[in-house]
Amino acid sequence: MTYDPNNIFAKIMRGEIPCKKVYEDEFAFAFEDIHPAAPVHVLVIPKGDYISLHDFASQASGAMVKGFFDSVTKIAAQLGLEKSGYRIISNHGPDAAQSVHHFHVHILGGRSLGRLLP
Amino acid sequence: MTYDPNNIFAKIMRGEIPCKKVYEDEFAFAFEDIHPAAPVHVLVIPKGDYISLHDFASQASGAMVKGFFDSVTKIAAQLGLEKSGYRIISNHGPDAAQSVHHFHVHILGGRSLGRLLP
Repeated sequence: MTYDPNNIFAKIMRGEIPCKKVYEDEFAFAFEDIHPAAPVHVLVIPKGDYISLHDFASQASGAMVKGFFDSVTKIAAQLGLEKSGYRIISNHGPDAAQSVHHFHVHILGGRSLGRLLP
Repeated sequence: MTYDPNNIFAKIMRGEIPCKKVYEDEFAFAFEDIHPAAPVHVLVIPKGDYISLHDFASQASGAMVKGFFDSVTKIAAQLGLEKSGYRIISNHGPDAAQSVHHFHVHILGGRSLGRLLP
């Protein structure tokens, strides 16, 4: 699969589709999920053309990968989840129902999140 | 919270508690979860004293963070999940029921994984 620059998250990051943005820095762009699965549900995407965690971790620089995941935890803190806790999820491929092919991380919190899987 | 070097995952990595090891390199150590939530359920931990993703991403080097997440996707491929897909989960704090305070990533696969949260 090659990266499609017209995937919905790329369009959101370019401002072509509106979103509720919660954070942006040189590494990451974060916005509210439109179908929240918890009281806090934010998506974090890296700045760059990466389909999956595999692409991101193998192709991006160490500074970029470190910066992105550091930003994920800063965003969780900004959302007020540092003490109460949060779950980070990333889906890859059909069994995990990955729906958008721009690598993204879900931050979920604001309630007791229960077991790992339904 | 300070890192406890006698947490169960540190003991597993040091070989003081047995495990079903599936992978090891300079960045990561991976073993089967003893209470699997899916046909494939492996835990991946970094080599180093990190309680959480926050500690890991803010304190470890870029090379270490990149190497760790690159290894996570290599392990998923080694487990046969590259095409069928997999979910990566990391829990932080009480709402996510983080039970061991050594940063770890769950790799889950081998069946359709359903929704993000129960």
